[in-house]
Amino acid sequence: MKKTDQEIDLNLIKSPADIRKMDMDQLKSLATAMRRPLIEKVSHHGGHVGPNLGMVEAIIALHYVFNTPEDKIVFDVSHQTYPHKMLTGRMEAFTNPEKYDTVTGYTQPKESEYDLFSLGHTSSAVALASGLAKARDLIGGKENVVAVIGDGSLSGGVAFEGLDYGATLGTNFIVVVNDNDMSIAENHGGIYADLRLLRNTNGTADNNLFRAMGYAYRYVHYGNNIPSLIKAFEEVKDINYPVVVHINTMKGMGLPVAEADKEKFHWSVPFDPETGNILGETAPSEEPQDYISLFATHMSSRIKENPKLALITAGTPGAIGLGPELRKEAGKQFVDVGIAEQQAIAMASGLAKGGADPVVGVVSTFLQRAYDQFSQDIALNHQPATFVIMYGSLFGMNDETHLGFFDLGLLSNIPGLLVLTPSGKDEFISMLRWAETQRETPVVVRIPGGGYGDVEGVQLLENYNDAPYQVVKEGKDVTLIGVGTFLSTMLEAAEILKSKGVDATVINPRQVSNLDKQAIEKMRGEKVVLTAEDGIVDGGFGQKVASALGESPVKVVNLGLPKRFLNRYNAADVLNELGLTPDKIAEKVISLL
Amino acid sequence: MKKTDQEIDLNLIKSPADIRKMDMDQLKSLATAMRRPLIEKVSHHGGHVGPNLGMVEAIIALHYVFNTPEDKIVFDVSHQTYPHKMLTGRMEAFTNPEKYDTVTGYTQPKESEYDLFSLGHTSSAVALASGLAKARDLIGGKENVVAVIGDGSLSGGVAFEGLDYGATLGTNFIVVVNDNDMSIAENHGGIYADLRLLRNTNGTADNNLFRAMGYAYRYVHYGNNIPSLIKAFEEVKDINYPVVVHINTMKGMGLPVAEADKEKFHWSVPFDPETGNILGETAPSEEPQDYISLFATHMSSRIKENPKLALITAGTPGAIGLGPELRKEAGKQFVDVGIAEQQAIAMASGLAKGGADPVVGVVSTFLQRAYDQFSQDIALNHQPATFVIMYGSLFGMNDETHLGFFDLGLLSNIPGLLVLTPSGKDEFISMLRWAETQRETPVVVRIPGGGYGDVEGVQLLENYNDAPYQVVKEGKDVTLIGVGTFLSTMLEAAEILKSKGVDATVINPRQVSNLDKQAIEKMRGEKVVLTAEDGIVDGGFGQKVASALGESPVKVVNLGLPKRFLNRYNAADVLNELGLTPDKIAEKVISLL
Repeated sequence: MKKTDQEIDLNLIKSPADIRKMDMDQLKSLATAMRRPLIEKVSHHGGHVGPNLGMVEAIIALHYVFNTPEDKIVFDVSHQTYPHKMLTGRMEAFTNPEKYDTVTGYTQPKESEYDLFSLGHTSSAVALASGLAKARDLIGGKENVVAVIGDGSLSGGVAFEGLDYGATLGTNFIVVVNDNDMSIAENHGGIYADLRLLRNTNGTADNNLFRAMGYAYRYVHYGNNIPSLIKAFEEVKDINYPVVVHINTMKGMGLPVAEADKEKFHWSVPFDPETGNILGETAPSEEPQDYISLFATHMSSRIKENPKLALITAGTPGAIGLGPELRKEAGKQFVDVGIAEQQAIAMASGLAKGGADPVVGVVSTFLQRAYDQFSQDIALNHQPATFVIMYGSLFGMNDETHLGFFDLGLLSNIPGLLVLTPSGKDEFISMLRWAETQRETPVVVRIPGGGYGDVEGVQLLENYNDAPYQVVKEGKDVTLIGVGTFLSTMLEAAEILKSKGVDATVINPRQVSNLDKQAIEKMRGEKVVLTAEDGIVDGGFGQKVASALGESPVKVVNLGLPKRFLNRYNAADVLNELGLTPDKIAEKVISLL
Repeated sequence: MKKTDQEIDLNLIKSPADIRKMDMDQLKSLATAMRRPLIEKVSHHGGHVGPNLGMVEAIIALHYVFNTPEDKIVFDVSHQTYPHKMLTGRMEAFTNPEKYDTVTGYTQPKESEYDLFSLGHTSSAVALASGLAKARDLIGGKENVVAVIGDGSLSGGVAFEGLDYGATLGTNFIVVVNDNDMSIAENHGGIYADLRLLRNTNGTADNNLFRAMGYAYRYVHYGNNIPSLIKAFEEVKDINYPVVVHINTMKGMGLPVAEADKEKFHWSVPFDPETGNILGETAPSEEPQDYISLFATHMSSRIKENPKLALITAGTPGAIGLGPELRKEAGKQFVDVGIAEQQAIAMASGLAKGGADPVVGVVSTFLQRAYDQFSQDIALNHQPATFVIMYGSLFGMNDETHLGFFDLGLLSNIPGLLVLTPSGKDEFISMLRWAETQRETPVVVRIPGGGYGDVEGVQLLENYNDAPYQVVKEGKDVTLIGVGTFLSTMLEAAEILKSKGVDATVINPRQVSNLDKQAIEKMRGEKVVLTAEDGIVDGGFGQKVASALGESPVKVVNLGLPKRFLNRYNAADVLNELGLTPDKIAEKVISLL
């Protein structure tokens, strides 16, 4: 009897063992059955849409063929692992809306032994898997080690480093390359021509990047066909040398709107699965309402005015506000290097050296990958490039893998790198406008995700190099220094203090890389100086102030975030706990006076 | 008349224009003439031997064919640019021993307009050059842009990112791959099999990494033959698409001892050019005399005792003490991933997750390239791998490109990463021994270059996780905290203070990543707390102490290095200037009491 879709009761699938008993028809029905709650969840709850819909069959085939969890699968980026979670004991998190939030959007070892790493930055899976394989070889194990990496992640340097080393292991090492001809947006880079050639020749072309790197190679043209996938995986199972299995999948498969607009439905907030319309979306206003679209609007007009301006992204044009239209308009002045932050930053150094005006938009959590380029290629070489760090601060992304509050300390302790922290919209644009064409210094401008306010009394400058701290409000009892978005918090705290008879000075430091020595000198006579920054306190701005005032009797308090990987936090709760609200800051001041 | 070697007067060569008039015989004589002072200088003065001797002909041919400085050449690593400096106005720095130190060992824009970047970390030249090419295309220039990268540097992720992007430029972009079949030590990685195949097939093999990445390709088998090189470079000059010119050169060419032992003569202190013996070298003592050889000796014995131990380097086995014999002994427990720090650190995470005991030896200045792996793959995932940071502190390498004093702040502000700072030999080995097999936490052990002392009174522990600060000397007037090598400095300062009637407490914090809250509580009652660390003060240990004591009346002074790229400094002078000597520390204390 041929089994049909209706017969698959997803909630009976507790582990991969349950699917290893199925026949091909059942597995196909399983894929169909899994897509329904997947689409239901991502359209109601938001999340990664296309990557998960495209990988349903491959993940079924992987767990069918490989003896997980003994056999080890490392998923790169791991935002494509919803189907994996469904098959490994977490089905309810997809079938039962009340349990949607019981799982994260990435692999998470705390959730399941099938999840090997907490992983959200791209391109590291092959390197991680090479360590698992080496450990197996030292200990004498026999398990398969599989890395699953998407074509978009292949451009990241660590992916290449991992592939280069992995080729020399000489033992079982299986790399599944999920090729859907898309990064988050379109793919960029020389390797993609080769992937296309391989797809077009059914894997037979002579120019084969993977063979050139030392891998055996298999191509699966129908990467959403379970029998084809199972055949390929069975052929490489227990193999005793490194092999690449290149599978051609369709991003967004099974959801027409996601198949049609792969970039929009890479990740989405809740949407109507029929029309693809974003739920609750209002008509776009004339005026951009958040930092990211403000940046995009400003840059798209500047690109027309300054032909030497080069606008650079490392594979995340959408995340920094640059939709397909803006990119098209920008023409050759827009550069997407693919997921390759080191390239983006070093290239900016070359552009500045060559007389152009590079502006790089980079997501805070991903700039970490290019620390050496900030230090060596930019700062040591004094190249006046501009970097706009997006989603910095607590008001960024809130997964433990994507935090935006380690950036201030990281960059501000590099010699010669000016790190500007605008307090609101006008100051941001003023800083950006100056940074773009000046030739004095490399500049980082760091903005949070989300909306902006504007702070009354903030004075804009013509030149932000060696900019002094600005006293936004003059007082006599206590000094409050608010970095970036915390300037307005400090002003609110000052209001509260005023009502209690305390007259506070409020300072906008404008930047966190250099102490304003005159301003610090003035503070020596104070009773209390309080700093607040939307980054971790350790290694940050406030500690520099505390150190500079170390020999003075003034009491210094440094507020900010703890040195911890917070996970899926609520920003308001965190601020409250840390005493970073105007009320609590005012209380703290009064307790010290 | 055929001109002979004798007719080339090197000191008449002031710029590349002077060699563009020469015929082939003269150019050949020029190469012979240049090798003499090169060998003379490196054998008397020390420096990079093999890389420069191997590139004499290629650099002559580059400057002969390309119209430098209008045409732009970016040298990767730039330790192979001695011949380039000889041809670009700096001949005397090689022919006149009194002027040896008027040039650095790397390209340096302050020295010459022919030097585009200050560059010493590897693998970034292609990315930098891609920016120069893009700037040219935006501005409307016509110059050639050339990146020269060695085979050893190709394994670094940013090299691949640069190649991947560069392939899409669609305009003039010339990558010269200098293939001498050697990294610093032997090459490691899948791409090297392909380079070998290309060499063995005179560049005709189908498996061609560069073609697979989208480049046109030319192979020069005789990469030390000037006419062959000139022919190839002339063929690609003014080309309007990206091309790789793969040249096969001989590292150490012209100096038999360097041709024979390419690893030993990659870089060398002064040596006898006939015998290759290092000058002034004494017979190796039984007991290792410095941190690096101590590490090597310890690890080679531990490898025999612990079959799960994996000892990892990213292309610098010699710099971390692992000579060819130790490597051979270690067998499959020794892993050289090539110049690929991201791979080394992420792989260590996989190894630890897989139950092995990874120990990574990494040079301080190069760990910067793997910040994201320390943060995400190691710390966020709590993998108990061990990292020994070599040449940290002021007592490391002293070129501005190779500084070792930015590491403490960089790593100690990552949540959950324990950063240990041994004060001497026994504490180092004690920490290393514990770190290797424990399963509680990722551990960094940071050691300086050069010799070690041992500090009396330092108490060794069984377990360094959550280790408290140790009071090495109990006092009552002032507290001195000395990080790592500065513990002995503080003890000496305490001796001086004692002679002046001041009784100092001296503390060994053992680690810089977590404050010992009890110890800090005790300090609240002090008059003066002084910290000293051999890293930059900004973002470092002392500022954490200052911040923690900010509300207390105690005066806190943080000593350490300035946030500056020092260049070719003398460590003793720097310490003196910064007040980091026992005398000056004692003076400072007295001025505060």
